[in-house]
Amino acid sequence: MSSMPPFSARTLLGSFSDLICDSFGDLDRTFAGLTSFENAKEDSVVFALDKKSLQKAMESKAGGVIAHVSVKDHATDNKTWLFSKNPELAACMVKRKINAPTPYRGEVEGVHQTATIDSSATLGENTVVGPRAFVGKNCRIGKNCFIGMNTVIEDNTVIGDNTTVHPMVYIGHSCVIGKDCEIMPQATVGSEGFGYAHDHLGNHYRIPHTGRVLIADDVHIGAGTCIDRGTLNDTTIGQGTKIDNQCHLAHNSVVGKNGLITAQFVNAGSATIGDNFVCGGKVAVAGHTITTNNVHVAAFSAVHKSVDKPGQYGGYPLQPIKEFFKTKATLNHITEMRKNINKLMKAVFPEES
Amino acid sequence: MSSMPPFSARTLLGSFSDLICDSFGDLDRTFAGLTSFENAKEDSVVFALDKKSLQKAMESKAGGVIAHVSVKDHATDNKTWLFSKNPELAACMVKRKINAPTPYRGEVEGVHQTATIDSSATLGENTVVGPRAFVGKNCRIGKNCFIGMNTVIEDNTVIGDNTTVHPMVYIGHSCVIGKDCEIMPQATVGSEGFGYAHDHLGNHYRIPHTGRVLIADDVHIGAGTCIDRGTLNDTTIGQGTKIDNQCHLAHNSVVGKNGLITAQFVNAGSATIGDNFVCGGKVAVAGHTITTNNVHVAAFSAVHKSVDKPGQYGGYPLQPIKEFFKTKATLNHITEMRKNINKLMKAVFPEES
Amino acid sequence: MSSMPPFSARTLLGSFSDLICDSFGDLDRTFAGLTSFENAKEDSVVFALDKKSLQKAMESKAGGVIAHVSVKDHATDNKTWLFSKNPELAACMVKRKINAPTPYRGEVEGVHQTATIDSSATLGENTVVGPRAFVGKNCRIGKNCFIGMNTVIEDNTVIGDNTTVHPMVYIGHSCVIGKDCEIMPQATVGSEGFGYAHDHLGNHYRIPHTGRVLIADDVHIGAGTCIDRGTLNDTTIGQGTKIDNQCHLAHNSVVGKNGLITAQFVNAGSATIGDNFVCGGKVAVAGHTITTNNVHVAAFSAVHKSVDKPGQYGGYPLQPIKEFFKTKATLNHITEMRKNINKLMKAVFPEES
Repeated sequence: MSSMPPFSARTLLGSFSDLICDSFGDLDRTFAGLTSFENAKEDSVVFALDKKSLQKAMESKAGGVIAHVSVKDHATDNKTWLFSKNPELAACMVKRKINAPTPYRGEVEGVHQTATIDSSATLGENTVVGPRAFVGKNCRIGKNCFIGMNTVIEDNTVIGDNTTVHPMVYIGHSCVIGKDCEIMPQATVGSEGFGYAHDHLGNHYRIPHTGRVLIADDVHIGAGTCIDRGTLNDTTIGQGTKIDNQCHLAHNSVVGKNGLITAQFVNAGSATIGDNFVCGGKVAVAGHTITTNNVHVAAFSAVHKSVDKPGQYGGYPLQPIKEFFKTKATLNHITEMRKNINKLMKAVFPEES
Repeated sequence: MSSMPPFSARTLLGSFSDLICDSFGDLDRTFAGLTSFENAKEDSVVFALDKKSLQKAMESKAGGVIAHVSVKDHATDNKTWLFSKNPELAACMVKRKINAPTPYRGEVEGVHQTATIDSSATLGENTVVGPRAFVGKNCRIGKNCFIGMNTVIEDNTVIGDNTTVHPMVYIGHSCVIGKDCEIMPQATVGSEGFGYAHDHLGNHYRIPHTGRVLIADDVHIGAGTCIDRGTLNDTTIGQGTKIDNQCHLAHNSVVGKNGLITAQFVNAGSATIGDNFVCGGKVAVAGHTITTNNVHVAAFSAVHKSVDKPGQYGGYPLQPIKEFFKTKATLNHITEMRKNINKLMKAVFPEES
Repeated sequence: MSSMPPFSARTLLGSFSDLICDSFGDLDRTFAGLTSFENAKEDSVVFALDKKSLQKAMESKAGGVIAHVSVKDHATDNKTWLFSKNPELAACMVKRKINAPTPYRGEVEGVHQTATIDSSATLGENTVVGPRAFVGKNCRIGKNCFIGMNTVIEDNTVIGDNTTVHPMVYIGHSCVIGKDCEIMPQATVGSEGFGYAHDHLGNHYRIPHTGRVLIADDVHIGAGTCIDRGTLNDTTIGQGTKIDNQCHLAHNSVVGKNGLITAQFVNAGSATIGDNFVCGGKVAVAGHTITTNNVHVAAFSAVHKSVDKPGQYGGYPLQPIKEFFKTKATLNHITEMRKNINKLMKAVFPEES
């Protein structure tokens, strides 16, 4: 995958002086890319977050190691070492520089002749529009954007600079998407929500959803994820939040900043999530609940009520994480518990059995 | 979002005389739209379903309130009041009239020159086909339909009048979709189901799925939802049923009328669901089960066996909702329960410990 | 659905002599197709796996029955009987022959003039490319492939012979897909994974994902399923594995051979699954776990830790299936268990209450 020229350790040190605070070994050694331990060659860099991975790094063929500054004393002569207080971030930035830009935009250039762009829409400088993309009336797309193949952006939607909309994304009308965002293939942003009024015969009537979807800057939306527009107010996603694949954010969802929301998450209608929300896969949040800032939720859990204290939680019913771990451990024993209760009942209340 | 002329309270009263049974205040006041309490201006209408929301309506800046007829005595002079026995439905209809049509179809008109429509396919009057839609051989599309951008409709499929197929929908061959339906972006209707025969070496062979998907009138299919075709018989969705985003209805699913099926639902193969089925998010129904009419299932529950009594249910294992609430409340205590059992065992059977 | 000429029992016996080991009745009778019991006509074949379905077969109008060889003694004069040790596979093969090819490829032929195929890409003989498909730079597509309408295949991707990529699929750059595969509509293969480095302010930075997705031969990928590319190494799916709709396989997933993975499955990052893995719907596997070969997991379960013994499992926490069934049965009783514990505590430790 490496198509860029090799970089020397010295160049990396210069480029990331804020992240790489120290070094050891030959700074003129050059590298072709960041690799895993098992795939490393002499011109590879690997990274070591802790002592366990340090051992793997040392045993690998890699010529370079990005390691936590705390393991500096373990540096060996045969490799070039770059030390960081945040080796994961340093490795990420090194990989971006010497391996691959992210997001990948392919080799499409300019506005493809088969794209359908309404004459009232505007596109910023250097914005690329792939074959057969559709950009509706009055849309305003910023600079340096990428609008992928077969993507549909309906009327009156605004997209900020440097945003990548991958192929086959649907963005409904009148949405607002910030700068530096990335929307993965097959995502749906701005479809009408699942809100109905009902008559006495049991028929359901869609309430028109006139709210928008407002996505702040630096937000990522995963493949196949759906974000419905608001009913009366807007659905909003805060700055820096990353959403994984196949998540569902229902109408009137409010998601705070810098969240990390893992695959197959459901945020039910009108649920509010604070800043720095982190969850494992398959978590659900109930409608009309409010979850405060700095809440972490274990995978496969249900936030069935509002959470007003920051902290780690898990389970259904939701518990503080330590209690949840105890509950989970106890669940394996409930069959035996029942037997013992029956035995006790017979012994203590023989007349009842 | 309001692009329509303002409407007077009198006009609304006249248009919805079946829904709005009484009024109070200045009927010549005009409104630009239905809004939330917090966004209301003088030319806004808000709606109040109960006493709690009545208070919010009164404190809002809204000039008009649609309220339940039971709170008529609370009407104040400074607003115009419209009373209904079903204020949610009245508000829905008012919003449709003065704010926005639903579904939104954008400003595409006619049959776009870049659409690919087989010469053997027929389109009814006033049917709109967006750019790059594909309509296969022998398809019959009714009147006043909307076939969105980049949507694919394979051979021999029939679609009734007034149906909206949003952009980027896949509809397989030989399906039948009713009138007044709406299929959201990125939905898949009519792919082959997950049915395999197996040999003694562990290889799997897809059984050809020759059943169709039959969707009755007034059905909504959410974004990213998948409905597989039947194996030998048809997969069928009953009239008026609304299906949210990212649901999966496996081969041979039979879903009754007027259901409300919330996001990330799974109906496993050959499962039958009765009329008026309602469920929260992330519910699963096991294969080959039969769920009777008028069953409601709480979010995050599994219908692992047939349900033959109407009512509300929850949990996994599934229980009647009241028992499920008790089970859920008890789950938080099982760690303490185990401690107490151990203590009791030691006290009552000291020789065993 | 039957558009092929009728086939005689004798023809079927000849064509599938490896699967059909015996017969009874008139071998010159002809059949138009395999049907369900209820839809059977005189020219239908039905199949019977066991004694229960044998009864239904006998009561049906079908002229032909494919039945397990063990029920041979029950054959009746009025029907033509074909016996097999694997009647499901025999029926599957008969249906493929006399009813429908699978996968269905519609009636698109050749390379459609509206497809965008980079001049550096190569297509094998008899490969069909539908309208508006996109094939990027240096792609190599094998013989007899089908690339559906509006599908996007990015640069440098390789696809083996006889593979069907349905409409509206996204395949990212540099992926490798085997022979005889089928990728259902709206699937996403090769998007960047959900892997971020973080700074001390809580901002998240995507780690460039330079791994590929490697899909072996005879793999099926369901509608709306997402398979992310690896971070440093590749995401790999083993030969013969079938994946249902709306599954999520995160970065660095390793899935063995001949798996059967049912809808809304999640394989979290770097989780490894062995050969012959089978699961029900909505199963999740935790990140960085290793599941050995020949593991079956019940629907709605979470594989939250590595599984090193083959066998059947269920629940969350995961248990061997028999224990899980007992736990599930006991869960219905925990409210009553708690009451009894309280009663026992009062009786045994009266001073504490």
